Amino acid sequence: MNYNNLFSEINNSLNKKKAQGKVASYIPELSKVDPDKFGVHLTTIDNKHFSIGDANEKFSIQSIAKVLSLTLAYKIEGEKLWERIGVEPSGTPFNSLVQLEYNNGIPRNPLINAGAIVICDILISNLKSPKSDFLKFIRELSGNPTLDFCSRMAESEKITGFRNVALVNLMKSFNNIKNDINIVMDFYYNLCSIEMTCKELARTFLFLTTDGIDPITNKKILTESKSKRINAIMQLCGFYDEAGEFAFKVGLPGKSGVGGGIVAIHPNKYSIVVWSPRLNKKGNSKKGMRFLELFTTKTKSSIF
Amino acid sequence: MNYNNLFSEINNSLNKKKAQGKVASYIPELSKVDPDKFGVHLTTIDNKHFSIGDANEKFSIQSIAKVLSLTLAYKIEGEKLWERIGVEPSGTPFNSLVQLEYNNGIPRNPLINAGAIVICDILISNLKSPKSDFLKFIRELSGNPTLDFCSRMAESEKITGFRNVALVNLMKSFNNIKNDINIVMDFYYNLCSIEMTCKELARTFLFLTTDGIDPITNKKILTESKSKRINAIMQLCGFYDEAGEFAFKVGLPGKSGVGGGIVAIHPNKYSIVVWSPRLNKKGNSKKGMRFLELFTTKTKSSIF
Amino acid sequence: MNYNNLFSEINNSLNKKKAQGKVASYIPELSKVDPDKFGVHLTTIDNKHFSIGDANEKFSIQSIAKVLSLTLAYKIEGEKLWERIGVEPSGTPFNSLVQLEYNNGIPRNPLINAGAIVICDILISNLKSPKSDFLKFIRELSGNPTLDFCSRMAESEKITGFRNVALVNLMKSFNNIKNDINIVMDFYYNLCSIEMTCKELARTFLFLTTDGIDPITNKKILTESKSKRINAIMQLCGFYDEAGEFAFKVGLPGKSGVGGGIVAIHPNKYSIVVWSPRLNKKGNSKKGMRFLELFTTKTKSSIF
Amino acid sequence: MNYNNLFSEINNSLNKKKAQGKVASYIPELSKVDPDKFGVHLTTIDNKHFSIGDANEKFSIQSIAKVLSLTLAYKIEGEKLWERIGVEPSGTPFNSLVQLEYNNGIPRNPLINAGAIVICDILISNLKSPKSDFLKFIRELSGNPTLDFCSRMAESEKITGFRNVALVNLMKSFNNIKNDINIVMDFYYNLCSIEMTCKELARTFLFLTTDGIDPITNKKILTESKSKRINAIMQLCGFYDEAGEFAFKVGLPGKSGVGGGIVAIHPNKYSIVVWSPRLNKKGNSKKGMRFLELFTTKTKSSIF
Repeated sequence: MNYNNLFSEINNSLNKKKAQGKVASYIPELSKVDPDKFGVHLTTIDNKHFSIGDANEKFSIQSIAKVLSLTLAYKIEGEKLWERIGVEPSGTPFNSLVQLEYNNGIPRNPLINAGAIVICDILISNLKSPKSDFLKFIRELSGNPTLDFCSRMAESEKITGFRNVALVNLMKSFNNIKNDINIVMDFYYNLCSIEMTCKELARTFLFLTTDGIDPITNKKILTESKSKRINAIMQLCGFYDEAGEFAFKVGLPGKSGVGGGIVAIHPNKYSIVVWSPRLNKKGNSKKGMRFLELFTTKTKSSIF
Repeated sequence: MNYNNLFSEINNSLNKKKAQGKVASYIPELSKVDPDKFGVHLTTIDNKHFSIGDANEKFSIQSIAKVLSLTLAYKIEGEKLWERIGVEPSGTPFNSLVQLEYNNGIPRNPLINAGAIVICDILISNLKSPKSDFLKFIRELSGNPTLDFCSRMAESEKITGFRNVALVNLMKSFNNIKNDINIVMDFYYNLCSIEMTCKELARTFLFLTTDGIDPITNKKILTESKSKRINAIMQLCGFYDEAGEFAFKVGLPGKSGVGGGIVAIHPNKYSIVVWSPRLNKKGNSKKGMRFLELFTTKTKSSIF
Repeated sequence: MNYNNLFSEINNSLNKKKAQGKVASYIPELSKVDPDKFGVHLTTIDNKHFSIGDANEKFSIQSIAKVLSLTLAYKIEGEKLWERIGVEPSGTPFNSLVQLEYNNGIPRNPLINAGAIVICDILISNLKSPKSDFLKFIRELSGNPTLDFCSRMAESEKITGFRNVALVNLMKSFNNIKNDINIVMDFYYNLCSIEMTCKELARTFLFLTTDGIDPITNKKILTESKSKRINAIMQLCGFYDEAGEFAFKVGLPGKSGVGGGIVAIHPNKYSIVVWSPRLNKKGNSKKGMRFLELFTTKTKSSIF
Repeated sequence: MNYNNLFSEINNSLNKKKAQGKVASYIPELSKVDPDKFGVHLTTIDNKHFSIGDANEKFSIQSIAKVLSLTLAYKIEGEKLWERIGVEPSGTPFNSLVQLEYNNGIPRNPLINAGAIVICDILISNLKSPKSDFLKFIRELSGNPTLDFCSRMAESEKITGFRNVALVNLMKSFNNIKNDINIVMDFYYNLCSIEMTCKELARTFLFLTTDGIDPITNKKILTESKSKRINAIMQLCGFYDEAGEFAFKVGLPGKSGVGGGIVAIHPNKYSIVVWSPRLNKKGNSKKGMRFLELFTTKTKSSIF
C-alpha cells in the first residue's frame, strides 16, 4: 500500500482548520522552533518509506528518548529493573511528586520524568562512559553514526529544570538514586536533547515492531518478551495523563515528546513518526495526535 | 491449533506450587465459594472451543459485567458518553474517592466502581425497563436465554456496599447522578451479581474480537470504532491499579472480577476466560493472571 | 467596660464598605434568610450584657452546635472519645474525604462534618432518647426551656446532603459508625437545625469561659481540663481551613456556622456571638470575622 | 511562686517510666547527642529564673529558630509577607510536597520547612549580610553576643537534606524563591544549626510574652499585633501534625525542634524551655511534651 496519498489527504483535511496549540515555552531553546513545522515518516518492516512535509528535518525528540534509555537499561538489567520502577500508568500529572511520596520514591513507570531519571541513574551505574555508550547504542539503532546530543538544548533545560531537580532529590531522600545528582541530571538533560528527523526516528524504533530484532540489520536488540513489554509500557504510559485518550483514539503503542514529536508502532507492520510542535494542554502534539487518529481509523490499523 | 494440551501443561506447572491468594471476603455471599475451583475456556472467532477444569460451572462475574453495561450505554449514547466519564487509568486504588473530588464527580473511566455506577445511571435514563432490557441484551450476546441476576448476591453486596454508597452520593453532590440513588444502586448490585460459566462468558465477549460484529450470529453489536475503543479501555483500565502489570505480562485487553474471573480477548483470534477464586492483594485472580501470562507467552499471542 | 459604644463604632466603620459575600445557598431553607441581618451579643462571666442589632432574633446555628454535641459526648465518654476522632486541624476542605481514607475512617477532629457525625453516632449509642436528651442538655445550658430543632431546616439539609451521606458511608465501611446510618444522619441534621438568638448562644457557651462551671448556675458542666481542651479544639479546628486566619486575626477560640453565626470566647472574661449571613469563600461569616478582628484588636483581648 | 520544686516533682514522676523515643538520626551530627540529657528553664517577665537539669548546656535548637527568622522577616516586610506564605496548619506531614503543588508553591505556614525556606529567601532579599545580620538580631534578643551558627551541624544537614532541596526546587519552579537556591539553602541550614542553652532560649523568646517589647531591655522588637500573631501561628503550626495534640494537652503557643527542644510561652507570664533529645514518632520531644502537659495542668496555666 502507498501511504503518501493518504498522508496528503489527511493533512489537507486537518489544514482546513486554523492551527491550534502552543509550542512548549518552559524550555527557552524549545520555544524558538517554527510552530508550523510538520512532518510524517512511516517505515515498514520491509524497509519501505512514506513521508510528507518536513520529515527530513531535525527536531528535539525530548521524552521520546526515554524509550531508548529504557531499552538499554532493560537489556542490561533484565527484570531486576522493576525493583526500582513500576509499570503502572501514573494518573494525573500533578501526581508525579505526590505518588513518589506514597510509593517511597519508586516512580510509577519508566516514561514519566521521575522514572526516566532512575533509568539514567541505572545506566550510569552500569556503563563505563554513560553518555558516549548511550550515543553508540542509538547510533547503531538509527543507522546514523552522527547522531548527537544538543548541548545548547541540554543547557537550556538545565537552567529551568527546577521541578526535575525536585524529583531527583526526593528520590535520593528515599535512596532510589545511587549516583551523584549532578551527574544523573547531566545525563538526563543530554538524553532529552537528542535531535532526529522523522525518518531517523521511525527507523530507530523499528526493532519494537519486530519483537526486538532489527529487521534491517537482523541484529537482536532485545528478546521478544522484553520488546513486547516495552510496547505495553508505551501503550499504558506513553502520553502521561492522556495515555487513555491515545489508546482510545489511535490504538497504537507510542510515545510523545514536548518537542512535538510522536512515535507510534504497529507490531509486525510499521513504525510511524509525526512532528508538529504545537502542543495541547497535556503537552502532546495537537496535530500529531489528530493525524494519527485519522490515519489508524482510515487504515483500520489500531491494534485493538 | 489444539489448545487443550497446552492448557493441561500450564495447569500442571502451576499446580506444582501451593495455591496462593484468598477468596474475596468483603461480600459474604462471595466468600462461600470453593477457593480451588479452576476453569478455562477459549472460543475462537470461527467457533472452535477449548477448555479445562470447571469451565462449565457458573460463577459470579462481578466487575466483568461492567464491560457489558458499558457496551450497551456506548451503543445508545455514542461519544456523548464521555462528557460524564473519562477514559484514563485511575492510578492507585484509594484514589477512587480522591480523584472524584479533584475531577468534580467525573470518574476516571467506566470500569472503576464510580464509572460503572454512572453507566448504570445512564442506562436507567435511557431504558424503559433497565434491568430486564439489560438482561435481554446479555442473553442475546451470550446465546443463553436463561442468564439472570442472582438476587442473593445482589442483596449480599448491598448490605456491605457502604463505600459504593459513598461514591454514588459524592457523585450526586456533583450532579453527575441523575436518577434516584436507590434505583441506581439496585441496578448496579444486580449488574455485578450475574453468574456465567467460563464458556458462556467467552462466547459473550466474542464480538469484541471481531470489530463489533458477533461472528456466530453476524449481528452488529457495535461499530468497528466503538468496539476497538472498548478494547483500548479494557487494556488501560481493566485491572484497577494492576492494568500495567497485566498489559506488561499478558499483553491482551481484558477485565477481571473479584469473583476470580478474568476475560481477555485477542482481536481477530479468540476470547479466553479463566476462573480461579483466590485473589492477589490487588483483587485480581492470582492463578488466573499467571495462567494467562504463560499462555500468551507460549503462544506468542500478546497484541504488542 | 461598656462595649455598646465600641460595637456601634465598629459597625459604622464596617458599613462604610458595601456588604460582601453570599448567603449559603446549598441548603434551600438557609438561602431564604435576609442577607443583611446583623447582630452581636456579648455576655461577661458576671452576667453583664452588651449587644447591637438583631441580637434577639433567632438564626440557624448550624455547625456551632457541633461544640455542644462534642461537650455532651466528651462528658459521657471521657478520653476514650479520642480513639474514634482526632484533635488535629484538617488542612484544606477537599481533604475531608481524602483524609478519611488515609486515616481509615478516623476524622481529623470533632468539628468537621465527619467528626461531628461520629459524635452523633456516639451519643446515639449512649443516650436513651438521643434527640430529646440532647435538647434537654442545651436547654439547661442556654437557660431557655423552649429551644428546639427546626424540622423544616433538618429536612432541607437532608434533601441536599449527599456529601454528608458519602462521609458517613465511607466511615461505616471502616467500621467507625456503629448505628444505623439513617438514624445517625437524622440526629445530625436535627443537631445542625437548632435556632438561637445571639444572646442565647452567648449564654450557652459561657461555661467554656469559666473552666467548665456555668457561672450563672454554678453547675459543673465539664471538668476544668475538658473545658480547656474543648477551647483548644475550637482554636485549632473551629473554622475549617480558615482556622489559622481566625487565630491570627481574632485570637480567640471560636466556632462558625454556615448560617452566618460565629461564637468566640475569652477565658475568664466573656463569650461573644456575631451573626451576619453573608459568607466568604471558606464558608465563614465575612462581616462577622471582620467585626471580631476589630473588636479584639481594639480591646486588646486576643488570648495570645 | 517557686517552680523548682514542681520541676523536681514532675521529673521524678516521669523518671519512674523507662525513657522512650529515639534521638533524631537522619542528621548524622544530631545523632551523636546523649539521649538522656534533660533540662528545663523558665523565665518570668519580671526576670525570675527557675530550672532543673542540663538547663545551661548548649543544644541544637533546630526548627525553633524558624520563629526567630519569621520574627525578623515579619518586622521587615509586614503583612506583605503573607502573599508568599499562608498561616494555616499543614495537616499531615507527607502533605508538605503535596500541598505545595496544590497551592502553586505557596507553603501553608512559615514554620514548616517549605515556609521557613521562603522566609530565608525573603531575608536574603532584604538584608545586606543575611547571616551576620541575623546573628546580630538573635544575639540582641538573647543577650548573648557570642551566639553562633554551628558549621559542623549545618554541613551535616546539607549532606542529607535531599528532601529540603526537593522543596526549594519545587517552590523555585513556581517562582516563589527569588534568590539562588544554594545561597538560600546555606542560610537555611545555618539557621537550623544554632545552639543555645535552655536558659538562653527562654530569654530569647521573652518578647513574645509581652506583646513584642523585650521586658528586660524595654526594646520594641515587634508591634503588639504582630507579636500576638506570631503566637497564634505557633499555637496552630508549631508542632507539625501534632499541633492539635500540643494545644489540647499543653495549651500554650510553642515550637519544637528535632534536637529535642521545645519552647512555650504564656502571655504576660513566662517563657519555658524543655530539652530532652528522645523524640516521638512525629519528631517532637517525648519527655518534653509530657513534662509541659503536667506542668500546665498542675499550674492551671493553659491559655484556654
